[in-house]
Amino acid sequence: MSKSDKYTTIHYHKYLELDALLSLQKPRSTAAGETAHDETLFIIMHQVYELWFKQILTELDSVLLLFREERVREDNMHTVLLRLRRITTIIDLLIEQIRVMETMTPLDFLDFRDYLFPASGFQSVQFRMVEATLGLREEDRITYHGKSYKIVFTEEQQARLHDIETGGSLFELIEKWLERTPFLRFGDFDFLAAYQEAVDRMIGHEQAQISNSQLSDSMKEMRSRMVGDSSTYFKHVLDREEHERMVASGEARLSYDATIAALLINLYRDQPILNIPFNLLTELLNIDEGLTTWRYRHAQMVMRMIGNKIGTGGSSGHDYLARTAEQHKIFRDLHNISSLLIPRSSLPDLPPAVERGLGFHFRNT
Amino acid sequence: MSKSDKYTTIHYHKYLELDALLSLQKPRSTAAGETAHDETLFIIMHQVYELWFKQILTELDSVLLLFREERVREDNMHTVLLRLRRITTIIDLLIEQIRVMETMTPLDFLDFRDYLFPASGFQSVQFRMVEATLGLREEDRITYHGKSYKIVFTEEQQARLHDIETGGSLFELIEKWLERTPFLRFGDFDFLAAYQEAVDRMIGHEQAQISNSQLSDSMKEMRSRMVGDSSTYFKHVLDREEHERMVASGEARLSYDATIAALLINLYRDQPILNIPFNLLTELLNIDEGLTTWRYRHAQMVMRMIGNKIGTGGSSGHDYLARTAEQHKIFRDLHNISSLLIPRSSLPDLPPAVERGLGFHFRNT
Amino acid sequence: MSKSDKYTTIHYHKYLELDALLSLQKPRSTAAGETAHDETLFIIMHQVYELWFKQILTELDSVLLLFREERVREDNMHTVLLRLRRITTIIDLLIEQIRVMETMTPLDFLDFRDYLFPASGFQSVQFRMVEATLGLREEDRITYHGKSYKIVFTEEQQARLHDIETGGSLFELIEKWLERTPFLRFGDFDFLAAYQEAVDRMIGHEQAQISNSQLSDSMKEMRSRMVGDSSTYFKHVLDREEHERMVASGEARLSYDATIAALLINLYRDQPILNIPFNLLTELLNIDEGLTTWRYRHAQMVMRMIGNKIGTGGSSGHDYLARTAEQHKIFRDLHNISSLLIPRSSLPDLPPAVERGLGFHFRNT
Amino acid sequence: MSKSDKYTTIHYHKYLELDALLSLQKPRSTAAGETAHDETLFIIMHQVYELWFKQILTELDSVLLLFREERVREDNMHTVLLRLRRITTIIDLLIEQIRVMETMTPLDFLDFRDYLFPASGFQSVQFRMVEATLGLREEDRITYHGKSYKIVFTEEQQARLHDIETGGSLFELIEKWLERTPFLRFGDFDFLAAYQEAVDRMIGHEQAQISNSQLSDSMKEMRSRMVGDSSTYFKHVLDREEHERMVASGEARLSYDATIAALLINLYRDQPILNIPFNLLTELLNIDEGLTTWRYRHAQMVMRMIGNKIGTGGSSGHDYLARTAEQHKIFRDLHNISSLLIPRSSLPDLPPAVERGLGFHFRNT
Repeated sequence: MSKSDKYTTIHYHKYLELDALLSLQKPRSTAAGETAHDETLFIIMHQVYELWFKQILTELDSVLLLFREERVREDNMHTVLLRLRRITTIIDLLIEQIRVMETMTPLDFLDFRDYLFPASGFQSVQFRMVEATLGLREEDRITYHGKSYKIVFTEEQQARLHDIETGGSLFELIEKWLERTPFLRFGDFDFLAAYQEAVDRMIGHEQAQISNSQLSDSMKEMRSRMVGDSSTYFKHVLDREEHERMVASGEARLSYDATIAALLINLYRDQPILNIPFNLLTELLNIDEGLTTWRYRHAQMVMRMIGNKIGTGGSSGHDYLARTAEQHKIFRDLHNISSLLIPRSSLPDLPPAVERGLGFHFRNT
Repeated sequence: MSKSDKYTTIHYHKYLELDALLSLQKPRSTAAGETAHDETLFIIMHQVYELWFKQILTELDSVLLLFREERVREDNMHTVLLRLRRITTIIDLLIEQIRVMETMTPLDFLDFRDYLFPASGFQSVQFRMVEATLGLREEDRITYHGKSYKIVFTEEQQARLHDIETGGSLFELIEKWLERTPFLRFGDFDFLAAYQEAVDRMIGHEQAQISNSQLSDSMKEMRSRMVGDSSTYFKHVLDREEHERMVASGEARLSYDATIAALLINLYRDQPILNIPFNLLTELLNIDEGLTTWRYRHAQMVMRMIGNKIGTGGSSGHDYLARTAEQHKIFRDLHNISSLLIPRSSLPDLPPAVERGLGFHFRNT
Repeated sequence: MSKSDKYTTIHYHKYLELDALLSLQKPRSTAAGETAHDETLFIIMHQVYELWFKQILTELDSVLLLFREERVREDNMHTVLLRLRRITTIIDLLIEQIRVMETMTPLDFLDFRDYLFPASGFQSVQFRMVEATLGLREEDRITYHGKSYKIVFTEEQQARLHDIETGGSLFELIEKWLERTPFLRFGDFDFLAAYQEAVDRMIGHEQAQISNSQLSDSMKEMRSRMVGDSSTYFKHVLDREEHERMVASGEARLSYDATIAALLINLYRDQPILNIPFNLLTELLNIDEGLTTWRYRHAQMVMRMIGNKIGTGGSSGHDYLARTAEQHKIFRDLHNISSLLIPRSSLPDLPPAVERGLGFHFRNT
Repeated sequence: MSKSDKYTTIHYHKYLELDALLSLQKPRSTAAGETAHDETLFIIMHQVYELWFKQILTELDSVLLLFREERVREDNMHTVLLRLRRITTIIDLLIEQIRVMETMTPLDFLDFRDYLFPASGFQSVQFRMVEATLGLREEDRITYHGKSYKIVFTEEQQARLHDIETGGSLFELIEKWLERTPFLRFGDFDFLAAYQEAVDRMIGHEQAQISNSQLSDSMKEMRSRMVGDSSTYFKHVLDREEHERMVASGEARLSYDATIAALLINLYRDQPILNIPFNLLTELLNIDEGLTTWRYRHAQMVMRMIGNKIGTGGSSGHDYLARTAEQHKIFRDLHNISSLLIPRSSLPDLPPAVERGLGFHFRNT
């Protein structure tokens, strides 16, 4: 095909390869001579899911490429954001699609269920690739009968998954990008020190207000204890050694420096230079939350379709899926940033030099 | 494949023909050596649409088959209802999917738009089949440059469309089914006479109440005129000759008898025997409304993508699509039944014999 | 107000009591002189939720009334179905509404969070009433700090909750209605016996097919064991004594007779007389699933807003909400019916007399 | 209320003013002694709409305030964006809410419809305020019976609407903000000249490629004519005098300078400094499109509810609403920017000095 090809014409039907596409639905019940009406729906449902998984992978791969450049170019960040947002939009659609599956009743499913054995959603390599590309590691996964999730795949597929798992996931690239944030120490402004001071001041102020308030003694004590807990919590989390211990033990995953950078971005997100980084972190939460909801809704649908019986893949589908919903969350540490935030009114003001540094400088010269 | 095939195993990947499915995305920009990132999305979007169209056609064809049986079996009606409802659910998803398309910006579309020429959604034969199967006739369609919508299709596709258009659409089968409703004359109960009497009584009563009310004279006049208009309207619509004139002129499509049956079903829908017929008519409205919304949202999306410029198919896409939204509605006459309804409090009571006739009779003998 | 009131005019603004309605948003941060922009959203979000809860209660109360009539009238069942379906539609909207809440960032919430103490969604008496009316008993609830969920309410509210909990919930009314199903024994047709025979035949047939198949020995063994497990399961569940033991121990809640009736309705749902009962059971699952999803999404939102810190109500909101999502499911036993279904091809044919009994009898005499 | 108030406690029930809120549903049918079950739904539906309208107005007013500052502060733009996005999210919910209304059947509506006269959605002053605040002028509105839309409002409400219409709408503030864009002339870089040159080069190139292609003569002619039309179109639109003529005649509304700035922002949106402006323009399109869809769906719902009969407000509701859907669009000119875009490959490169000027400059000194 040459570049001038844009001047050859193409028909919609050919462009989309519809002859091939629409011949790929091959109900097994039909082949066996006892067509189950709903098997076509079942096939199309899953083919559509796989097409969307391919699209998500396409977007993720492009994002990884942009992030892998030696120096992440600022003018790529907007593109990254738009592509992550597209993934969220697609996941929303995947969730809605469960409603279509729910139009199939358990009795209708039984008409062809036996033909599927032992095929199952566990065997979707693309979905595993999506999870792995985002950053889910083999050790994070809930095991099924104590075996690697990879055993249902071909060697070639296993190799692809292995490459993804060892090649630098989005989680790792985001972590490195956060660690590179140049704003943590800025001239003589030390963000962490200023933040800790603000936390202390805020907590002292609150304790004083509680003492002087009209609250009953038991209420005073309760609120006071809450404030005290917060204080301990902040100290605990912001301690580098403590943090590293948590990472080592698996309680946290994101490195200390990346965590602090994410905190800074959340607190000062209104600074123009931090708008896009903030939106980007938000989008990672959206993707994580979307996938969690999808897994959960999927588990509900399976429950509805087959009750507590084991799925076609030989697993008690509902329980497994319901457990993965939350456990396979990837950017959990970013969710936890919320518990470190302090009110804007307590935020340390940025020194003017820093504030200028974080703004846009349009120099028309 | 033999019946025992349900005891051969199958892998998810093979069952869904994923090797083939995932190789059918062939961006023309890539072939030409200047990959446009968003072309993959564009292809997958449309392939997913076509898969859903196939599913809708599968459901519609099965419904037509059930309706074509000499005597529509009552115990098929529930199945018909569930399948129509599935179509509505799928259309809801098609509408949601427009959000995914909207993540593609006009500038991104421009990167590969030239490669598509003259491919266009006009060339989706499956969508035309959906419309024709529901009951859209060639003469109902908004013409484009005064030519048949069929000219963009192959001879074989044109033949298929022709067969559908002449083979008895869902509209026609529903019309015949309504005409067969046995309840219009029931022993010595004449529904239409009773209904017209009720309308007259209701209107007389309302006029009296208006006269006796505390309303200002101008308000009395306005309300009175409204009631009078209603009266004229009812007389007009319920007149067989007038109705047939409207059908002849194209102002209405549904036959007189079918219209009256639909009216009866709406008014007495709480009678057990009319539950499913009522739900079925409602579902036809849902499908019609869903497709209308889809066309309208599609038109908006095209406007956003290319403004007022002509589409890749050489049409001013937005205007054409926006006009089809409402014009290609199929069950318009069922929507209009609403304007014939009268309040339950004015409804003629069914004679006890009729009421028993419309209930369930469980005879445990 | 007299009946003639329909002839006095009313303005939209007055009808909706907008002067009062729009004056009920009273941000505490504003009262304290430091307006937090997002507090208005927070108030309106929750007021909208409460308005919808009122609507759900209105529908539920009307459904309970219809079910409480000595003999549930068949021509009310369609109304019941439409109202339950409306509840599902409203719950779908409640779920969507979480997206609006998610436009509030954690930092924005912090601006007024302290003013809310200790107000919390735990204190929504209407939501508790919805759960209780559906059938959630006090003992089913996850306790919070080991105390009754009622302690946050006024005495009058507690009394209302108590009345609901002891007055016959929807669960109980549905259970009684199922138990009254007259189809279980029908002339000389004994549904349960026929069903058990069909299960045995089906299982025997499957075992034979597995033995004769080309499967590897280990596969044969695995499939055979699965079939065997099914067999045990069916025997187990269909045994009245065993069932009663499960109810006594809390493993199941729905009575044996009601369970068998629900099974019959699911298996023979295509019989006209069972259409509405089947749709009604389906709608109960939809409501249950909708509330479950709402609780789960709510938990996710709380996690996002405040991380792992305790909520304004003093609870670790996310964990509590996430646990209630599944635990507060009410019609769990209806979900489990799915695991008792057998393929239509194995279903015992109904004797012709029974089949006639389940159809419509339109007698035009 | 003093600042220490955050240390007085508040109950959820009191905070939300639930006693008052839940007593504002006063069905007229109940007052008249013939309760129509669905009237409560009707009231709650509309009260919820009005609460959301209040929220939209709250967001719009805050955005206007931020835009009215002498010099729009860059670090407010992100806040503006988040608030506009919230409005879009709310509008999505308003659209979804129509499904709840659609659970009310025409027959159910008839049970209380007479009581509403002449109340109607036309009388929602808040919705008119939303439209006016966005920028809809009185002269843009489709008139109803040739009278001002304001006549259904009180004098005080009319005055409020007048103030909004004359006080600087969002449209006007956006227009001024676009006109202030400093990037149109940048050192010796003249954006418009460079853009026009690029358009000419692109068109010449395309014409050459068409001539040299393998297309049939008629195809060549067709494509060539399309390209020619584009060329004319670009010239036409980019001519200041021609543009001013269009504004004067009402064909366009956005000023020439603002249009060119919007074009630049769309073309160079990847430049960091233009990210937020681009996202902001996109959000205005989203709001416009959302309101259009809402009006359209609303029109459909009215059609379904009352057919072609006149609404309670005395208008033929469906037709009026369907026409406003598109006609009351406010940022039409921003939609049309799409037709002015040219492919990135044809875009003039920015001189390095300009590119630096559009990037972030982080100076850690």
